[in-house]
Amino acid sequence: MTQFFADIAPITYQGPDTADELAFRHYNPDEVVLGKRMEDHLRFAVAYWHSFAWEGGDPFGGQTFERPWHPQDEMGRAKIKADAAFEMFDILGQPYFCWHDADIRPEGADFAESLRNFEEIIDYFLAKMEGRNTQLLWGTANMFSHRRWMSGASTNPDPDVFAYSAATVKTCMDATHKMGGENYVLWGGREGYETLLNTDLGRELDHMGRFLNMVVEYKHKIGFKGTILVEPKPQEPSKHQYDFDAATCIGFLRKYGLEDEVKLNLEQGHAILAGHSFEHEVAVAAAEGMLGSIDMNRNDYQSGWDTDQFPNNVPEVALTYYHILRAGGLGTGGTNFDAKLRRQSLDAKDLIAAHVGGMDICARGLKAAAAMIDDGGLDAALRDRYAGWDSNVAQEMLNSDFDTIFANVLSGQINPKPRSGRQEILENYVNRFV
Amino acid sequence: MTQFFADIAPITYQGPDTADELAFRHYNPDEVVLGKRMEDHLRFAVAYWHSFAWEGGDPFGGQTFERPWHPQDEMGRAKIKADAAFEMFDILGQPYFCWHDADIRPEGADFAESLRNFEEIIDYFLAKMEGRNTQLLWGTANMFSHRRWMSGASTNPDPDVFAYSAATVKTCMDATHKMGGENYVLWGGREGYETLLNTDLGRELDHMGRFLNMVVEYKHKIGFKGTILVEPKPQEPSKHQYDFDAATCIGFLRKYGLEDEVKLNLEQGHAILAGHSFEHEVAVAAAEGMLGSIDMNRNDYQSGWDTDQFPNNVPEVALTYYHILRAGGLGTGGTNFDAKLRRQSLDAKDLIAAHVGGMDICARGLKAAAAMIDDGGLDAALRDRYAGWDSNVAQEMLNSDFDTIFANVLSGQINPKPRSGRQEILENYVNRFV
Amino acid sequence: MTQFFADIAPITYQGPDTADELAFRHYNPDEVVLGKRMEDHLRFAVAYWHSFAWEGGDPFGGQTFERPWHPQDEMGRAKIKADAAFEMFDILGQPYFCWHDADIRPEGADFAESLRNFEEIIDYFLAKMEGRNTQLLWGTANMFSHRRWMSGASTNPDPDVFAYSAATVKTCMDATHKMGGENYVLWGGREGYETLLNTDLGRELDHMGRFLNMVVEYKHKIGFKGTILVEPKPQEPSKHQYDFDAATCIGFLRKYGLEDEVKLNLEQGHAILAGHSFEHEVAVAAAEGMLGSIDMNRNDYQSGWDTDQFPNNVPEVALTYYHILRAGGLGTGGTNFDAKLRRQSLDAKDLIAAHVGGMDICARGLKAAAAMIDDGGLDAALRDRYAGWDSNVAQEMLNSDFDTIFANVLSGQINPKPRSGRQEILENYVNRFV
Amino acid sequence: MTQFFADIAPITYQGPDTADELAFRHYNPDEVVLGKRMEDHLRFAVAYWHSFAWEGGDPFGGQTFERPWHPQDEMGRAKIKADAAFEMFDILGQPYFCWHDADIRPEGADFAESLRNFEEIIDYFLAKMEGRNTQLLWGTANMFSHRRWMSGASTNPDPDVFAYSAATVKTCMDATHKMGGENYVLWGGREGYETLLNTDLGRELDHMGRFLNMVVEYKHKIGFKGTILVEPKPQEPSKHQYDFDAATCIGFLRKYGLEDEVKLNLEQGHAILAGHSFEHEVAVAAAEGMLGSIDMNRNDYQSGWDTDQFPNNVPEVALTYYHILRAGGLGTGGTNFDAKLRRQSLDAKDLIAAHVGGMDICARGLKAAAAMIDDGGLDAALRDRYAGWDSNVAQEMLNSDFDTIFANVLSGQINPKPRSGRQEILENYVNRFV
Repeated sequence: MTQFFADIAPITYQGPDTADELAFRHYNPDEVVLGKRMEDHLRFAVAYWHSFAWEGGDPFGGQTFERPWHPQDEMGRAKIKADAAFEMFDILGQPYFCWHDADIRPEGADFAESLRNFEEIIDYFLAKMEGRNTQLLWGTANMFSHRRWMSGASTNPDPDVFAYSAATVKTCMDATHKMGGENYVLWGGREGYETLLNTDLGRELDHMGRFLNMVVEYKHKIGFKGTILVEPKPQEPSKHQYDFDAATCIGFLRKYGLEDEVKLNLEQGHAILAGHSFEHEVAVAAAEGMLGSIDMNRNDYQSGWDTDQFPNNVPEVALTYYHILRAGGLGTGGTNFDAKLRRQSLDAKDLIAAHVGGMDICARGLKAAAAMIDDGGLDAALRDRYAGWDSNVAQEMLNSDFDTIFANVLSGQINPKPRSGRQEILENYVNRFV
Repeated sequence: MTQFFADIAPITYQGPDTADELAFRHYNPDEVVLGKRMEDHLRFAVAYWHSFAWEGGDPFGGQTFERPWHPQDEMGRAKIKADAAFEMFDILGQPYFCWHDADIRPEGADFAESLRNFEEIIDYFLAKMEGRNTQLLWGTANMFSHRRWMSGASTNPDPDVFAYSAATVKTCMDATHKMGGENYVLWGGREGYETLLNTDLGRELDHMGRFLNMVVEYKHKIGFKGTILVEPKPQEPSKHQYDFDAATCIGFLRKYGLEDEVKLNLEQGHAILAGHSFEHEVAVAAAEGMLGSIDMNRNDYQSGWDTDQFPNNVPEVALTYYHILRAGGLGTGGTNFDAKLRRQSLDAKDLIAAHVGGMDICARGLKAAAAMIDDGGLDAALRDRYAGWDSNVAQEMLNSDFDTIFANVLSGQINPKPRSGRQEILENYVNRFV
Repeated sequence: MTQFFADIAPITYQGPDTADELAFRHYNPDEVVLGKRMEDHLRFAVAYWHSFAWEGGDPFGGQTFERPWHPQDEMGRAKIKADAAFEMFDILGQPYFCWHDADIRPEGADFAESLRNFEEIIDYFLAKMEGRNTQLLWGTANMFSHRRWMSGASTNPDPDVFAYSAATVKTCMDATHKMGGENYVLWGGREGYETLLNTDLGRELDHMGRFLNMVVEYKHKIGFKGTILVEPKPQEPSKHQYDFDAATCIGFLRKYGLEDEVKLNLEQGHAILAGHSFEHEVAVAAAEGMLGSIDMNRNDYQSGWDTDQFPNNVPEVALTYYHILRAGGLGTGGTNFDAKLRRQSLDAKDLIAAHVGGMDICARGLKAAAAMIDDGGLDAALRDRYAGWDSNVAQEMLNSDFDTIFANVLSGQINPKPRSGRQEILENYVNRFV
Repeated sequence: MTQFFADIAPITYQGPDTADELAFRHYNPDEVVLGKRMEDHLRFAVAYWHSFAWEGGDPFGGQTFERPWHPQDEMGRAKIKADAAFEMFDILGQPYFCWHDADIRPEGADFAESLRNFEEIIDYFLAKMEGRNTQLLWGTANMFSHRRWMSGASTNPDPDVFAYSAATVKTCMDATHKMGGENYVLWGGREGYETLLNTDLGRELDHMGRFLNMVVEYKHKIGFKGTILVEPKPQEPSKHQYDFDAATCIGFLRKYGLEDEVKLNLEQGHAILAGHSFEHEVAVAAAEGMLGSIDMNRNDYQSGWDTDQFPNNVPEVALTYYHILRAGGLGTGGTNFDAKLRRQSLDAKDLIAAHVGGMDICARGLKAAAAMIDDGGLDAALRDRYAGWDSNVAQEMLNSDFDTIFANVLSGQINPKPRSGRQEILENYVNRFV
């Protein structure tokens, strides 16, 4: 026992009317929604980086949190950190978790030492996972924090960095595989540019395409059955990040022959920074069969950087899960809270409360989405709006050519009459459920 | 003579020191830059819609311009408008021009009447083009202004609108072909959605893909040798437009098998609205060999809508032409001023001055870009930065696999050392030329 | 009876579980909340311009609505429009309404004719208001749509436009007074600039300050007891609008000696465009005692222009009403739906449904806000957080000086310890109520 | 000699045609512009924090620079840092500099130790300034980085932090005074809020107003003759910063009776983040006589956070200096490069080149601005546009009332005719000079 969460009991479901600050009001793991347990729909995960590695710094200030495992520069405290993490997992009902290599082990003096540290911690994790339900949703390599990555990982102008990146991802994939992780994620925070003046964009994209193919080749070589996921973000820290948004990533995957091998890990905050709603990104990925997993958080709408706040707006979350449910659910993916406390939220209790609140919001959103699917009102509206396309005449037209269609139009058979899009009525409909 | 430009003489090149408000200071058509006449590099075009059809309205106010050809609802005034347009073309040195069908002909009571009006004006144009250098850079169909397109053209839930759109594009492609147009453009202002609640995004994208294939089939059928171009824009008027940006369009073209048939018409203002610099969009298209043409304008950086102002910032324009020159130039494309007067700029002289200023800015930008290419400093910097990749070792690594690379890294042969990205030095370099 | 709303019965409260598309689920006018009827808290108003004058155009397309009162260029149809408006008011339960002069009367050939049209319609309104509960929340002058205002109204470089503006506002204040309007609003859509190059910003601000003083002088002269309100917006249609946001307006009012005479009419969408949340703007105005009234709508978070959508997000609306309730309510102000249908929402039913949905969202928000006030959790958290300031020592320090404080700090008595800001816990708290 | 800049000779003016990477092409200190030496117009300053204290970190990565004075936790290395700084000042021609206390001295274990460190470094600086032209443009207190300030300085809910802040500012003002600094600056990075839920906005503003009054009182007490400056920024690190923009600050100063005591230090990047152009902020401050000094940098237009890049766009910089020159120049203020290297720019040469480039851009901008003032074209355009207001009739109208004006308008004497705003012509005019 680290004593870090000593005063906090495991969180239980107490229903919407409780005034308890640390209770689930909506998240009831065993409650069945659309034929499946809530826990199995939502597949919550805790992000190790924000909740345990981040020290509360921002661009204008340093550490505010003073955790028992700080500073994070040696193995003893890395294990205390792990102890605290699993204590929190137990309090929250043993959700999944996700890590970067750099979150869990101290950086070594060289690659070999970093690897030894990493492997030792992986074994420490494995021992803790014995007898617990907590599993690994995904692992990933942090290839953006250390100065060696400052000009990119797979897209670095220096081939040595490409090599170092490949070796790093191999070890992270190995560890993910060993831990039974269900996915492996790549987020390319430095895969982009600061200025086009020093960047050969085409060459860098080709290198990134080759690197991702190596990932897929290695996955098959080692027999990893999880899903490979890339995570779009438009910028920050880079001025431009190559994986700008879902559509850009899908185009990239198709260009490099990876559209059947790789899916997307979508994040609310990244969607907002790219000029999209979160449900847009989910819908784009779903339309291509490439929805993999989600990083649930929220971005402040008035801030132009990645605020990574815990979600708290039910109507927005409900629309996201609506599109997820329509796409058949999250598959091997889950709902990872890629969300961090505000840096003034110093207490252990804040960390628990943030997750409890986030889990409750998602549970409310899921139930509202399920109720809309059950009711069928939105589907019926869509069917009605596009009904014209179900006719043989329309399908024949679609397979004909301009001359044929032109003749039909000109001969006066076709003179379209606008019909209401009924947006407000549909918005009101959604508000019946959220 | 319409008398509209009666007081304004043809614009001549007078050099940078003239104080004349209506003279070229930098644009000298016959001046040779990198072995080609300036006019042949820049291929300026006037946008008929902004300069002749737009009446000065904005979302909060109506017409401010009172032109002799207003209101634009009958053929007589459509011809006066054409007369004025060609008078302006003569004043500006007979550049290219571009039109939407709806800019040049009054809407008829039905498709047939609109078509008759259109064909009559096309013939009127052809007569004017006799003996002039003014040619058609591109034609396009306005499928966003009339209420029939309110829910999309090829992506409309009503197949009758798809049909009407197909017939319309056919007539516009016919006219473009007849006039010897060098490109045909599609901008899908309503190809997107207002709300996902009433939208079947996947189905709409498939329809848009089929439509664009029909365009290409028809091009080949009629023997049109120009380039088919799509024009990215992220939103406005739609909340989301499917052709969001260059990368999204390229992904779309590849998905629907059109990557060898269609290129991009890129606009500065649309780049900005999508969260990109203009040179980014040009570089992305160039890296894929899909740079087609540009709509040169500028978007106010503090306004969140399409401001379509005339370009006036030389350093920005220079970087754009730098990427264009490196990509081999504009090919069949050109520099179309998709730019409109501010609605307080009421006078004929304002319209001329805006174009003169824009042409001069582009000429300065082109010359600066050419000087940088001549000097070779940026290319040398790139070659130096990526030199590591030119070695056999690096290329072998790229074709190897994770296990091989891992072994190399672990054995200590690889320990990357960061090198300066020299961004400020390169920015200073550019400022030597602009 | 215009027959426009012929099929639609008056809306009744049916409770949250009804599936009726046209029923109040939450808005129950007579229900008492914090000791006051809901209707008296919310004071809903319909905006004549969006709901009756706007024809469905946007910057890229024309009219989509085809109302019986279109085109709006003569008095007969202006009266049909008024008939339809009052039919809608009856259906919605006879809320307040708001107008611009230009919404309700056709523009005349000159000032005198416009005034005659205006006065005739005002009398027509007055006759309709007899025996109804529908009252005027506020009137205002449209000094941004006609081309005469293209360079501003009170800030126009031409003093004749200042004069025309003064005469116009006088007539609108007279009409508002005659109708028993409870406020008079000024929104300066063109009081700003397109470019600083042609603008004497200081001089224009002085003219605007003088104009607003004239408004106040005239109010007192005619004995109008309502509140004078200015409405902040950062830009659009202008590049920069002088009344940028609440803080800017308050500074302006103080500079020109108007801080006790004028309050603010705040709009959600304008807050968003200025980079603020709506509750921020309300809190800023409330802190200065200048909260006047609200224009309730929503702005799409991904669009950079004024989208003026009907509100539909309960958590956001609840926080707004929380700050309104804490400030003592809306006083002479109200909740004006400065919101328009999407231009694809063609039907009379859409117009009713949009208002019903908006009223319901506000009612839910109000009830949630009242519940939070009743519970007192947020107030208690504030009291606790600032408790240190309630001590005599703290107040003495505040009234001391740097030397005194320095001596205390240096002598080691003062060494501050950070305390958690508890943001997530407070956000969870709010989610118990919304 | 630290050897850090060992290979770099003092920068000299070599004229626009030199290809030397480290030469002034435009900045020629003794060149007279509008009757004053360039150096005396521009008054360049180096920002100690970006150039010497910042280690290259960003929100996603750590230190990239490895300077001889890192880590910055003890006095010995603080002096090496100072040595390097003054070596750079010599290379650049002995400009002004600016500091935060936290940039120049290591944090001590308590207030007293921090103060001893600070005073020792101030003396070290003073010794270096002997015999050099380098002077202090301004000093300021860093009250945002250490965790004690996480909830604000003067606006902290804890009065002990207010006290600590007061004591800190006193010491910084003392040091500034001792060093002969020409201004004292306050930037309130944490004077704002993360969430309104835990914030008493009105109370915090009152505390901030009182604090600033204490600053002014102390200034007079110690006889400091420099200018007190506040620096607007809309947000970051806070969600909302109270000193949002120039207009907000001016309103704040007026409310708390400080409009004659305090001026503004305006920053390009902060202007952009607030939704303004830099020249807008300068013009607003100038119109109120509150222009104090500028932080010259640039913000990437596509990034939503403070990028603090070195300026590089001449046309933009020229418009800023145009407004500065029209306002009578910078007075006690100067041109402080609140700009940092990109974190990939590792070399000492990058640091010099960045400043050289920035100084050259400002010099070009200044000369272009001076040429426009000399030519008088913009002033003439303004005079002409507002000429109507110079008449007695117009001035009488301004001093009359609504009834009088109404009578004039109605009687038909007034019927305004729009005149062109000539924006494009004026933009072209500017391009003659930049």
